[in-house]
Amino acid sequence: MRAYLDWNATTPLRDEVKAAMREGMEISGNPSSVHTEGRAAKMALEAAREQVATALGAEGADVIFTSGTTEAAAMVLAGKLVHCAPVEHSAIKAWCEHDLAVDHDGIVTVTDPANSTLQIANNETGVMQALPAGLASSDLTQAFGKVPFAFNWLDITAGFVSAHKLGGPKGIGALILKKGTDIQALIRGGGQEQGRRGGTENLIGILGFAAAATAAQRDLEAGLWDQVAAHRDALEARLLAASPGSRIAGKGAKRLPNTTCLLTSGWKGETQVMQMDLAGFAISAGSACSSGKVRASGTLQAMGFDDKEAQSAIRISISPALGEDQMNRFADAWETAYGRWRERNG
Amino acid sequence: MRAYLDWNATTPLRDEVKAAMREGMEISGNPSSVHTEGRAAKMALEAAREQVATALGAEGADVIFTSGTTEAAAMVLAGKLVHCAPVEHSAIKAWCEHDLAVDHDGIVTVTDPANSTLQIANNETGVMQALPAGLASSDLTQAFGKVPFAFNWLDITAGFVSAHKLGGPKGIGALILKKGTDIQALIRGGGQEQGRRGGTENLIGILGFAAAATAAQRDLEAGLWDQVAAHRDALEARLLAASPGSRIAGKGAKRLPNTTCLLTSGWKGETQVMQMDLAGFAISAGSACSSGKVRASGTLQAMGFDDKEAQSAIRISISPALGEDQMNRFADAWETAYGRWRERNG
Repeated sequence: MRAYLDWNATTPLRDEVKAAMREGMEISGNPSSVHTEGRAAKMALEAAREQVATALGAEGADVIFTSGTTEAAAMVLAGKLVHCAPVEHSAIKAWCEHDLAVDHDGIVTVTDPANSTLQIANNETGVMQALPAGLASSDLTQAFGKVPFAFNWLDITAGFVSAHKLGGPKGIGALILKKGTDIQALIRGGGQEQGRRGGTENLIGILGFAAAATAAQRDLEAGLWDQVAAHRDALEARLLAASPGSRIAGKGAKRLPNTTCLLTSGWKGETQVMQMDLAGFAISAGSACSSGKVRASGTLQAMGFDDKEAQSAIRISISPALGEDQMNRFADAWETAYGRWRERNG
Repeated sequence: MRAYLDWNATTPLRDEVKAAMREGMEISGNPSSVHTEGRAAKMALEAAREQVATALGAEGADVIFTSGTTEAAAMVLAGKLVHCAPVEHSAIKAWCEHDLAVDHDGIVTVTDPANSTLQIANNETGVMQALPAGLASSDLTQAFGKVPFAFNWLDITAGFVSAHKLGGPKGIGALILKKGTDIQALIRGGGQEQGRRGGTENLIGILGFAAAATAAQRDLEAGLWDQVAAHRDALEARLLAASPGSRIAGKGAKRLPNTTCLLTSGWKGETQVMQMDLAGFAISAGSACSSGKVRASGTLQAMGFDDKEAQSAIRISISPALGEDQMNRFADAWETAYGRWRERNG
């Protein structure tokens, strides 16, 4: 029986999401068509938009469905060259100047909020940022569904989210814009999404996204992520006790409740990922998107870790789906592998 | 019992597609992750890519999954200002010079293929073009699954397709590129799709697309669309007999087997759509994307129809799912409405 500790890479679908998508499969019309079938599709689309807005605390803001955070970020950031920190996800870094300062705990200093983008939470370390007022945009992806926040309280112009980090399907997400913010469409054509994103809408994905957003909000309010934090803290205490030379990136900062970035200098993260995979546990070395690449994490380098440390990083990202037993089995497996590595490396 | 005669706008999901998507819902990993769950997702993704390539006769070409034709077109056409005809879909026209000549049957003359884009088949009239050798790109959307063609035999550099025109889900499609063609990514980030389209892949949609492509190819080979053409021809004969003043746009040209664009000068297309909707039939006035807009169709204007004629257009686009009985019921309903309109307009 495998255990999945790579929640920040992607999540399995929630049951409510599967049900919503199965229902969506029976909606045959194109939301742009004026006949009965088209209007039914349009109604489902707009109801889903409301649900996502509510879950995000973005009532009254514009919710523009995209294929995910990567597209939403491109819509806002392409050609602008705003400031960002090297800890941002590659979907953000692709378009920005990486010139914002990062301290050893991963905290970013923003000097010009109106011309900067800053994530709420880092995908590799879980380190959370206090967003400055008037910030241009923020990658909300990793925080959405794991910690409470409301877009309308953040005082930012644009936010990016993806459904597949909260139990929704891959390939759907949204750009959230303060009402009436002007942006140029990246994908143009039929005038969908108020002319900001052309192309027939991914209705089944959108319905899954809406169901995921609503369920994630409910779980958050029910305190499920407080339990996750307790599991995570217990795990970290155990791993550090077993391996006193290991460190946890960003441990001094406020972090997501589910994320541990563990560094054991000299023991390659990729090796640990493979050993844990064989033992029945899915974890990662850095973000999924950079998996398989030999480069050390830009996030960890920006936090001042040297290459040897950065390359030893593993990311353990857990969820309410994991019980104490699975957490203990993972710790057992990691400690066994760690013991073998210590033996070989005296 | 309603009948759906708006196949060119979008199609209901095929049963095989629903099954493939339901299976895809159980794949939990991110295709970019290296662990077992990630590799399973990656295998499913690459198998789907092969299926789509095979159905398109594009073996060996690059199949890049996008959110649909609109995005695929933007990836190739944005910033290039190539030549196109005013009969192209708005997703193409958004990026091009609309300066290619169109004759009364809707046939386009291309003078500089290497700097032009030309659809295989028009969404409103069904008129098919003979693509000139060396053409830069082609919108293959309406032809895919309705008429046989092979990307590798077309001698074009790029093709655009969407799954939802052939029984697949909305919001997924592909850009097909001759092997190794250089394009700049519009959506950048994690290096997915050979660095040409960032963002975690819409895996469930992709699996649905692949199932649709395979099934569409099978139906085409089984001759299902020859029956559609026979139904369409019978319908046209009936409607023209009942309404001798009506015309069919592009009737002199080779057309898709399922599409009729009927003009009854003076009788607004939108009115007909609403009357047919009330009578239980989904048809459209022009493309779904331009539904609800008051402009007359650019396609029909380019073919030399005046505004009054162009605004009278209805598009009837049928499928193998419709039997003779439904076709006859539609013809009855249209003829009744036509009779009433003639009475009022003496």
